[in-house]
Order: sequence, then structure tokens, then C-alpha cells
Amino acid sequence: MLQDLKEQVLLANQELQKQGLVIYTWGNVSGIDRERGLVVIKPSGVAYEELTPDKMVVLDLEGNIVEGSLRPSSDTPTHLELYRQFPQLGGIAHTHSKWATIWAQASRGIPCRGTTHADYFYGEIPCTRPLTPQEVEEGYELNTGRVIAQRFQGLNYLETPAVLVAEHGPFTWGKDCHEAVYNSVVLEQVAEMAFYTRLLSGHDQPISRHVLEKHYLRKHGPNAYYGQS
Amino acid sequence: MLQDLKEQVLLANQELQKQGLVIYTWGNVSGIDRERGLVVIKPSGVAYEELTPDKMVVLDLEGNIVEGSLRPSSDTPTHLELYRQFPQLGGIAHTHSKWATIWAQASRGIPCRGTTHADYFYGEIPCTRPLTPQEVEEGYELNTGRVIAQRFQGLNYLETPAVLVAEHGPFTWGKDCHEAVYNSVVLEQVAEMAFYTRLLSGHDQPISRHVLEKHYLRKHGPNAYYGQS
Amino acid sequence: MLQDLKEQVLLANQELQKQGLVIYTWGNVSGIDRERGLVVIKPSGVAYEELTPDKMVVLDLEGNIVEGSLRPSSDTPTHLELYRQFPQLGGIAHTHSKWATIWAQASRGIPCRGTTHADYFYGEIPCTRPLTPQEVEEGYELNTGRVIAQRFQGLNYLETPAVLVAEHGPFTWGKDCHEAVYNSVVLEQVAEMAFYTRLLSGHDQPISRHVLEKHYLRKHGPNAYYGQS
Amino acid sequence: MLQDLKEQVLLANQELQKQGLVIYTWGNVSGIDRERGLVVIKPSGVAYEELTPDKMVVLDLEGNIVEGSLRPSSDTPTHLELYRQFPQLGGIAHTHSKWATIWAQASRGIPCRGTTHADYFYGEIPCTRPLTPQEVEEGYELNTGRVIAQRFQGLNYLETPAVLVAEHGPFTWGKDCHEAVYNSVVLEQVAEMAFYTRLLSGHDQPISRHVLEKHYLRKHGPNAYYGQS
Repeated sequence: MLQDLKEQVLLANQELQKQGLVIYTWGNVSGIDRERGLVVIKPSGVAYEELTPDKMVVLDLEGNIVEGSLRPSSDTPTHLELYRQFPQLGGIAHTHSKWATIWAQASRGIPCRGTTHADYFYGEIPCTRPLTPQEVEEGYELNTGRVIAQRFQGLNYLETPAVLVAEHGPFTWGKDCHEAVYNSVVLEQVAEMAFYTRLLSGHDQPISRHVLEKHYLRKHGPNAYYGQS
Repeated sequence: MLQDLKEQVLLANQELQKQGLVIYTWGNVSGIDRERGLVVIKPSGVAYEELTPDKMVVLDLEGNIVEGSLRPSSDTPTHLELYRQFPQLGGIAHTHSKWATIWAQASRGIPCRGTTHADYFYGEIPCTRPLTPQEVEEGYELNTGRVIAQRFQGLNYLETPAVLVAEHGPFTWGKDCHEAVYNSVVLEQVAEMAFYTRLLSGHDQPISRHVLEKHYLRKHGPNAYYGQS
Repeated sequence: MLQDLKEQVLLANQELQKQGLVIYTWGNVSGIDRERGLVVIKPSGVAYEELTPDKMVVLDLEGNIVEGSLRPSSDTPTHLELYRQFPQLGGIAHTHSKWATIWAQASRGIPCRGTTHADYFYGEIPCTRPLTPQEVEEGYELNTGRVIAQRFQGLNYLETPAVLVAEHGPFTWGKDCHEAVYNSVVLEQVAEMAFYTRLLSGHDQPISRHVLEKHYLRKHGPNAYYGQS
Repeated sequence: MLQDLKEQVLLANQELQKQGLVIYTWGNVSGIDRERGLVVIKPSGVAYEELTPDKMVVLDLEGNIVEGSLRPSSDTPTHLELYRQFPQLGGIAHTHSKWATIWAQASRGIPCRGTTHADYFYGEIPCTRPLTPQEVEEGYELNTGRVIAQRFQGLNYLETPAVLVAEHGPFTWGKDCHEAVYNSVVLEQVAEMAFYTRLLSGHDQPISRHVLEKHYLRKHGPNAYYGQS
């Protein structure tokens, strides 16, 4: 069942490790089959090199396990909430990658400091508010998804495919699980350069709006001309 | 004698190098057989790639060499003191890994700045006081163990399996020598992110108590649900 | 046509990746055959490992595609403007390499803080002004080339073979495409060391003029004595 | 002639590259045969991977080339001056390694901030004064050696086998060329940790004198007990 999606999600999880975004078991990727409404996600606490397609866990959007004998990632309720709230997502990645996590730990969004950022994210990468004690108590992982969705009210989640969860770390997403991981890699680069740009410039101002728009739209707008058609 | 423990301690020492925590001979790992009361430790000043099980040194808890023709690590009295003071330790690792050492050199404990830290350490990673001239004179390595034990009065050494020795560097521990090294790796990640989080946030505040507890306990508490049961 | 130049430009593009200056498709190198007035450049958005000589794009200096079925790098008008304005260039490289980009994002030129810099760049590596909304609107990539040329009025582009485009990143050049990439590598080292030197020294002063001249001229002056004759 | 020394010096030069201390041709190592008064040094501007024993240059202490068809390193007069001034040196290494160079560019000595430093250097690693215009004009490389020797008046060059040349970078030395390179590696680690310790602690104070002495002397003193006897 969902053999191809399982293999894709497996590869995407291992890509986290190859790209240096995770050590040990510090990240997880999921993918969704929107037609069937089923999500494939990494099992909890299993090393990336030991993953096989059969070890992946399949759940429906309410969190019922449909296939798989292992426990799914402990962050599964966050993934499911994002799939419910953001209906165009095909894949989600969560890591504790160094630079994105540093911004999350400082509870700050990452301002757009240059065209590298603008090529992928249409403005600041937002940071959620911290969870309240009650939210943590009542359903930590589910409420993590909810504060992310709350933070995106008024924002377009397709134009800014990344978020920082305060005190915790980043989630990224995309049209499929590979794009989600790709965006994790880009986020990490952008987060690091923004950190040092802030230190060098001594201020927090983003780049000019017209340069942001130009770079984002030449890659992602209706008249995009970057890459091959 | 203790052939299996020697091999495990050997592998754990070499893991320090593979993980980039040490260069040359800048670290040492030991393991203990609690039933026999015997400790296996790296010989002093021997390169990791030249280690063999036969070169490992076996000592009793009073420091008498029971087996081995090489001199044990010069930090052996520190290890032995920790095994005596902390009866549930199975393994100890000492490194001069970059970021943990930086915090130690600044004589500062590492506050819990995010969930990565909270997943492994139940609060601040403490830093000892510096040794007095008399303590250095009378027994430098033994007294290093004593100031560590002193620093843990009122703390649970199993919940915070790491310490920074002021002006020097970190020691970590665990149920066996592999867990001790694993905790050295995690400590290094946590130390680096805490450093930059401090620089970015401009303050030293730890994360919320309820998030710390949630993350620590979902992995280590009686109702832990991270990983496979 | 231009088979050798295509192969050189291909290798130079791949060298960006080997040297760690780019990930994904974040950089491009071109080379020029001055006799024929033809430029060879990387196709847009194609991964470095998928490049073949046949995929390289050949254009004349007015931007007409002379050979190649793929779309050229979106930065092509910048390259062409530089070839027109700086008649002795043989190759140009553009990257988003971390440290050079950080200086560009802070809109600061890189002062000469040491002899490593002076060995290759005869003084500060300049940063352009930001483009105006009108310049972005009317021809972003072409005007990027123009503000670079404007910035070099009164400077010798052969003695300072690198520039930072404000809010964006670096361009470097040389007598051929390999020297352009070589200068990208050196720029990255110099940019990083200048960043930390500034943080450590607490000021922005360059090194002594006489040391700058000595180092630059012993490698590049008429009486150069570095290397083999 | 001096076949063995040539091979050792060759290996030591290549070790600079393996240890990540140099790129391209940014460093040089020499060794001396004290009985014959002859120095073997890397040829200028030759890539490390192209070095062969036959390409090494042999000079006497006055700088006359005794063997070799290539031009010696442009820094040769500095090496020779150090061999003349410091009669117990067997090998010298010069690099532009990142962190040591940053301290040199900031014209600051590296204070002893921890036991890693104290294990190898008996106190601060000194930085020279800058050269005057006249010194640069009259003999840049020779006078670089002279300001180093001047800086060591009152210091023991065997107890502090490294120096920073202001605005330039480090030289290290040892009983032979391999120890010189070893000390370059240690210097780089120590320089980086001292940089960040300064940033974290907000001050420039070295560690306690009694800890410095303990660590240095347990490895290098008459009663040293580190390593195997």
C-alpha cells in the first residue's frame, strides 16, 4: 500500500541526514496521498540508516494507524494538523538544524536579508508564539500544529514554506516530501547568513521590497523566467 | 579479562574521533564492570587508531592497575572519583570538544535554550567552580572529580549527564560507555546552539519550564512515548 | 563550436560545487572567446552534475543565442555587461557563497584586514549601491552589471577582481573562467576572516598601506618574485 | 642529498593541507639539518599535490641555494632568521590558517583561556608589532623574522612554539618539521576557542596561573606524567 510514497518518504528522511540537517534521530519527514487522505511518516526514534519502506507508518488524517507495526514519529500530530490546515501541502519536514533552531530558540522570525532568501521565501520566515502550559498539557504536538496555523493567518503558506516554532525548531513543507526537505536545506543557509548579516550590519532591516519581489517572482511568479520551461 | 568491556571502551574511544569531538589524543572514555568493581580506560597519549583491546588498562576503584602494561589516561583519578560518587554510572567520556570547552573556559553553565537540550538534559548543564591552588597541588585529577561531585549536590546526575569543568572542558556519562559518548555528541550540539542563541537573543533566559518538562519527560519519564517501546 | 571553451566553463561551474561555494543551482560561471566575441555560460537552473558541454549556451555580446537549446543563466545580462565594460576579462563567476554574501547583504565592502587579502586584491573589495525600483523594473540583471561598472569608476578591475552586489552576493572575474572561480574561493576565505577580525578588533581599519603594497606587488607587480618564473 | 629530510619536509607540507590549514599554496614548512647547517624548504607557489622530494629546495643558513632548481618559498628569509635566532628549532611551519590569522589580523596575542592551550603553550601566544615602512622596503621577509625574534626577548621560544605576525598570520615550530605542523594544528584549535571564549565571557582574562602550570608541566615538565614513558 502506497509503496511509492513510502519509498519517497524514506529517501526524503535519509536526505535530511545526507544534507547535514540532523544527527541521530533528530528529524522526520512525511508525505501525503491527498486522494486517499493518507499520510506516510517516519517511525519514532529509528535511525535513518535502518529505515526500510516497510517500517514507514501510514495514518489517516485523524491519526488512526492504517498500516505499520511501529509507533509513528512523536511529532505526528503536528504533521497531521498542518495537512488539515494547509490543504495544498504534499510533504512536511521537521529538523533541529542548527541555524534555523537558533532563530527558533531566540523566538525570532528570520527577516529577508538578501536575494538568496527572496529566491525561496516571499518575506520573513515567521516564528510562532510559545505554547502555554495548558496547551502543552492538553496536547503538545497537536497544539504545536495549531500555533503554526494561527501564525499563518493572513500569510500565504505556499509563498513562505517554512516556520520556526518558538523554543523548538523549524518545520518546512512543499508540494511533496522532497521539496519539503529542499526547503529545509535552503532555510538553513538563509538562517545562517541572516544571523551573520545582522551581526555585521548591526540592524534588523530586510532588503528593499522591490528586490524581494523581483527575485521571488522571477522564480515563482506567473512570468517566472528562472530555470528551464 | 573483561574482553567485551575492553572492546566496547575501545570502540567508544574511537567514536569520539569519528564524531569530530577530539583530535590527536584529546579525550578518553572509560567503562565500569560494577559487579567486579573494575574500570577499563584508555591508555594515556595513545592515538585512537593505534588502540587495541590489549592496550586498554584495567583498574580497581582505588586506582590499582589490575591489568595492562601501559599507563592509564592521566585523567583516570577523575573517572574513578565519579564512579565512586555516582554509583549508577556505567561509562564516562572526557573531551575538549569545541563548544562545550568554550562554555567551560568562560566558566558558565549552559542554560536550556531549546527543546534539543530538553530532550537530553533536564535543565542547565552545570559548570564547576575553579580548583584552588592547593587542590591542584595536592591532587589535580582527583580533585577535579571532587569539584564535579560537589557541584552536583542537590542535582540528579542521571537527569543531567554532563558537566563542564571550569577553565578546562566537559565530562559526560551514561549507563555505559556508548551512552557517555552519545551524550558528548549531544552536548556539543546543544552548547553551540546555546552560544548563538545567547548572541541572537541578547539574554540568558532558559525556555519555559513546562516545555522543558514536556520534552524531557516524553523521552525519559515514566510515561515516555518517544521511540519504540 | 567553441568545444574547448565549453568544457572549461563546464569544469569551472562544477568547481564551484567542489569548493563548497554553491549548493543546488546557486551559482554560474561564464567564459568568453574575445576573438569571436562569444560568451559560453551555464544554462539556467540545471544541476552541476547534469551539465555536459552540449548543454552550455553560447551567446554574442548583445545577448543573442548563437548555440544551445537551453535557456542561459538568468544572470546572463549581468555577465554580458561586465564583458562589455571590462574588456580584459576572460571569465566571470557568480555565487551566493556564505561569507561574501553576508558582506553583500550588509551592503559593506570588505576592507583589507591582512596579507591574505593583499595577496589577491589591491585594497577593499567594493560593494555596489542598491538598485532603484526603476532599475529593477526596467532590467534587473542588466542594471546589476551597470551598477557594478559604475562602482568601479576610478578603480582598476584587474587589481580588484571581485565585487559585492548589495543585498545580493559576489561576482568575481579573471583572465579565464578558472581564475574567476579561484578568485571566488579566495574571496570567501578573505570575507570570513575579515568578518571575525572586525569582531575581534572592534574596528574597521585596513592594514598598513606599505604591507598591502608589498604583498600585492610581490605577487602581481612588475618585479613579482612569488612562485616560479 | 638530505633525502630523508626532503621526504619529511614534503610530508609535513602535505599535512598542512590534510589538516585543513591551507588551501592552494598558502603555507610552507621547512626542516633543518643542524649538523650540516642546511635547510630544506618548499618551493614557492607549487601545489602540495605536485610536490616531490626532488622539488624541495636546500639552502644554507645564509640563504645560498645548495640544491634544487626551483625558487624557494618567498618566506624563506623568515625561516632562516628563525633558525639563526632560535638554535634549538628543527622545523618551522607558516600558514594562513583561519583562526590564528584572525588574531594576527587583529594584532592581538592569544591569551591562555583553558587547559587545551596550557597543554601546549606556556602562556599567551604573542603577536609581533607591525613592520615599519622602512623594514618592509629594506627586506620584508628577513625583517619579519627579526620582529619575531624581538618579540621573544624575555620569552622561552621552546615553551611557546608559536607566534602571530601582526596583519599577517602564524608561524609555529618544533623539534622537527612534523612537530611544527602539529603545533599549527593545535594553535588553530586554541585560537578558535579563545575567540569564542572571549565573546562569551566578555573579558580577556587568562586562566589561573596554577592551572596553566599544572597542565603545561604535567606534559612538558621534568616530572611529566602524561603519555607513555
